[in-house]
Amino acid sequence: MRRGRFITIEGIDGAGKSSHIAALAHWIRQQQREVVLTREPGGTRLAESVRELFLHRDDMDALTEALLVFAGRRDHLRQVIEPALARGAVVVCDRFTDATFAYQGAGRGFELQVLSQLEHWVQEGRQPDLTLWFDLPAEVAAARRGAARDADRLERETEDFFERVRDGYAARAAQAPQRFVRINAERPREAVWQQVEAALVAHSWW
Amino acid sequence: MRRGRFITIEGIDGAGKSSHIAALAHWIRQQQREVVLTREPGGTRLAESVRELFLHRDDMDALTEALLVFAGRRDHLRQVIEPALARGAVVVCDRFTDATFAYQGAGRGFELQVLSQLEHWVQEGRQPDLTLWFDLPAEVAAARRGAARDADRLERETEDFFERVRDGYAARAAQAPQRFVRINAERPREAVWQQVEAALVAHSWW
Ligand SMILES: Nc1ncnc2c1ncn2[C@@H]1O[C@H](COP(=O)(O)OP(=O)(O)OP(=O)(O)O)[C@@H](O)[C@H]1O
Ligand SMILES: Nc1ncnc2c1ncn2[C@@H]1O[C@H](COP(=O)(O)OP(=O)(O)OP(=O)(O)O)[C@@H](O)[C@H]1O
Ligand SMILES: [Mg+2]
Ligand SMILES: [Mg+2]
Repeated sequence: MRRGRFITIEGIDGAGKSSHIAALAHWIRQQQREVVLTREPGGTRLAESVRELFLHRDDMDALTEALLVFAGRRDHLRQVIEPALARGAVVVCDRFTDATFAYQGAGRGFELQVLSQLEHWVQEGRQPDLTLWFDLPAEVAAARRGAARDADRLERETEDFFERVRDGYAARAAQAPQRFVRINAERPREAVWQQVEAALVAHSWW
Repeated sequence: MRRGRFITIEGIDGAGKSSHIAALAHWIRQQQREVVLTREPGGTRLAESVRELFLHRDDMDALTEALLVFAGRRDHLRQVIEPALARGAVVVCDRFTDATFAYQGAGRGFELQVLSQLEHWVQEGRQPDLTLWFDLPAEVAAARRGAARDADRLERETEDFFERVRDGYAARAAQAPQRFVRINAERPREAVWQQVEAALVAHSWW
């Protein structure tokens, strides 16, 4: 039996992650591999409840948020990801722990040390085999999300926030260069897909 | 303004905690103090959702459970307990962190070190001013809960579990003797109430 593989898709809101995930799954299935498509936060009943709670996160502090995210992640790993990997499937997950470091850590300024400890407890060494990081300037992502170009104060704050998140992804990529592949997500769809395909072909898993 | 006070009620299932909490609140109100009655897990919308998730905890591992409990606790502290203490109220909480150490820790064997780290992050030094520990043998509590006396295997396992939880409470009490008051909860209601009242009177808060 071939080894299971764990692929995560990362990047700021509007980077184009969801736009490419179906094609990615299709490509992998053509290699005669079982694909399990999933997302975070989510993927189990418990983790989807956590996602629900996040809709009202206004009154939630960063630590509460981090504890909930990792509780959902633990459940997701135990119920979905680890069993799929154990039976040789390829798990493709729309966001994972790098997003927590980028959003809660770099974006909101929550202590990276606490996140690292939680990561260690929850993942027990499990890391993605490949992380496709859809990278692009916050401004371009905002335009794709349909945000006003003539940014008012709130919009500029949002852009600063997403630039910090982007820096957070860059820092994680620098710490784990063996699994991170940076995709230039500013390019047109077809060019983005070619980079994704190249990253997949580069691995001798298939 | 008088200082807020934080009182927690602890003990295994069927110890008589809920049976005495209304009288306790009544007694404190007679001292002209605002009382906030609450419980864990629970006390906020988020924490009540966590309580909901616990109803299906069969498929939840101990770490997931601990992360959820402390996420709910963080929210409860921020939204309810700390604001009430800040305005001088007396908060009476049916179970708190000692229960996590007793149930998840001593009862289920989950690592106390992880619980201690979570306690430290979430509470930032906040501890109850007084903990009323309703202590009694697991067998007596089981009888009160209406469990069969002629214990079959499951029932005996349950009893072993609650004896471990009881030991867990004893260990926490030994670590924080200044705030713990052991109530002999095996005695009749009236005698239990007298011990509770004595513990309250002994404090010069009123
Ligand atoms: N290469 C591209 N060029 C231009 N527009 C794109 C490109 N890729 C995706 N888009 C468009 O950008 C928008 C955001 O894409 P998508 O929803 O895939 O992003 P996402 O990374 O999944 O965002 P989120 O994190 O919010 O889920 C969509 O309207 C999509 O059609
Ligand atoms: N001192 C007592 N003597 C005999 N029975 C008691 C005494 N105190 C309470 N009970 C009875 O024991 C049962 C359990 O009491 P209670 O619900 O107050 O316990 P509890 O500690 O709140 O339990 P749980 O942890 O399950 O909420 C109830 O039926 C109650 O009437
Ligand atoms: Mg998406
Ligand atoms: Mg009760």
